[in-house]
Amino acid sequence: MTVPADTAPLAVASLEQALAAMRARGMRMSTARRLVLSALFAAEGPVSAAHLAGELSLDAASVYRNLEMLEQLGVVRHVHLGHGPGLYVLRAAEEREYLYCRSCSAVLALSPAELEPVRAAIRRRLGHEVRFDHFALVGVCSECARAPGQRQAARGARPSVERPGERMHSHGHLVHAHAAAGAEHRH
Amino acid sequence: MTVPADTAPLAVASLEQALAAMRARGMRMSTARRLVLSALFAAEGPVSAAHLAGELSLDAASVYRNLEMLEQLGVVRHVHLGHGPGLYVLRAAEEREYLYCRSCSAVLALSPAELEPVRAAIRRRLGHEVRFDHFALVGVCSECARAPGQRQAARGARPSVERPGERMHSHGHLVHAHAAAGAEHRH
Repeated sequence: MTVPADTAPLAVASLEQALAAMRARGMRMSTARRLVLSALFAAEGPVSAAHLAGELSLDAASVYRNLEMLEQLGVVRHVHLGHGPGLYVLRAAEEREYLYCRSCSAVLALSPAELEPVRAAIRRRLGHEVRFDHFALVGVCSECARAPGQRQAARGARPSVERPGERMHSHGHLVHAHAAAGAEHRH
Repeated sequence: MTVPADTAPLAVASLEQALAAMRARGMRMSTARRLVLSALFAAEGPVSAAHLAGELSLDAASVYRNLEMLEQLGVVRHVHLGHGPGLYVLRAAEEREYLYCRSCSAVLALSPAELEPVRAAIRRRLGHEVRFDHFALVGVCSECARAPGQRQAARGARPSVERPGERMHSHGHLVHAHAAAGAEHRH
């Protein structure tokens, strides 16, 4: 089942708010659902369902189902950072867009306003309306462009907290998840 | 096995040139390989391995192997148009970059020069160096933005020949290939 990319957001600021929103909609609150939500609040950037399943020792199918339900509710969205499966992240009151470095795997979460000049250039030149909330803008960051190869070693570095304009690294486990996904969807 | 995205291109203008290049490298020329190459020359845009396998009545694994070999050789590259598996296309003397409309599935093949102003805006604002040859720039084209929903019916339309700046539709089969890929990599 595919959740439309344009589901209306339902930003929640805390686990308690998320649980209240679900109760208000008469939704059942299973242990798995609560664990998934809790892990998303603890995560420092978008994470894969497989990573969450491993971290929480939950059945992968159950994690997927819960993420899709949360996505339909508008609490969660998924984003593709280049190759690999969708990575899940809580939706913020102000939506985020993503910039991904395919060399060092750094992820930059940006507010839409920061991307407006880029959007305007694309609109002016090509006529297309673009957003990078579902498919990240994939490139090579300025540091990697200056010193190719060097920053790749930083992949295992602890990610910083996701905030607009702040650099973070996708979780170490994600890098492996990307690399392991090759057979199915041909990198 | 993953082919690096930055393999040096070996543009071939005809099937004969491709076969000669492979012979010159001492590569075996199987029937499957010749059929895959021939179908790529006949294709009007990027096509999936699954589509080629169906069209040619070949084993999917054999088609994949041949496409990867051709990609390593630099004759073929793959591009991701939003969701779904990589789609394969012959490399041109001048590389192409891709712009994809997620509403009507139209694909626009552009020369790098046409995208330079967009690249410059991204470089200036964000510091990243981007190319849309491997991951297409995904958005909503100006027609779809003006008349949402109407152009979706055009999906089955015959694609026009791929040329820089010329609009084409991804092959009807591809649309299905995308939709069917959901279970594995979570749209």
